[in-house]
Amino acid sequence: MNTYRWEEISIGMEEHFTVVITEKMLDGFKEITGDINPLHQSREFAMEKGYADRVGYGMLTASFLSTLAGVYLPGERSLIHSVETKFLKPVYVGDELTISGKVSEMDERFRILKLKVTITNQKSEKVCKGTMQIGIL
Amino acid sequence: MNTYRWEEISIGMEEHFTVVITEKMLDGFKEITGDINPLHQSREFAMEKGYADRVGYGMLTASFLSTLAGVYLPGERSLIHSVETKFLKPVYVGDELTISGKVSEMDERFRILKLKVTITNQKSEKVCKGTMQIGIL
Repeated sequence: MNTYRWEEISIGMEEHFTVVITEKMLDGFKEITGDINPLHQSREFAMEKGYADRVGYGMLTASFLSTLAGVYLPGERSLIHSVETKFLKPVYVGDELTISGKVSEMDERFRILKLKVTITNQKSEKVCKGTMQIGIL
Repeated sequence: MNTYRWEEISIGMEEHFTVVITEKMLDGFKEITGDINPLHQSREFAMEKGYADRVGYGMLTASFLSTLAGVYLPGERSLIHSVETKFLKPVYVGDELTISGKVSEMDERFRILKLKVTITNQKSEKVCKGTMQIGIL
């Protein structure tokens, strides 16, 4: 885990990591949230709606932003203030996602940094983009 | 699960549900995301930082917006396009959260509705607020 202090962070700093989306993740997310929507549960339902397979929860993809901030940038001292995410393409089981963040602004007064975040799949397609505002504890 | 069609939705429509945050949820979220940040794992670390106990992941709280859209409003035909969330107060194990959404806009051209969302705890404190843009399949 990274342990960046405010003084060690600068605009343009980047971190990224990769995860492979598994059935277990989708099932675990369903168990935690109670989101039993068939788009995420049933291949048949998803295919009827024009998808290749059951679709990963957008908010599961977004959940990896927790890890991006809490483990990578800034890591241990992270406190997430706000998150904005836009979902651009479906995510499927087996997709390898790269979660990336880059420091785009630093507000010295409140010690809040802004990360520009992107999540891409193994085909380099952007599946999610957004921003996070993160305080430093 | 609700199955609202576009024609059945109108501005001002509201849905809500409640969940109690458990240790199991925090552990499950950690397992899925790999976010091992000590603020969410260690009571001692969290107390050193001025919190009453280990703090629930903001993105876990936000994950219930998946359920709000996918099960309640609009339910089955939901496809989340974007989510904005602001975290206002810490969430602890044992907190009872009420997740509420209200239709604030409807874009007829793209069949996208906008939900204004709020998450409050058992003391009626707002812990999270935001907006979601949701398509109807």
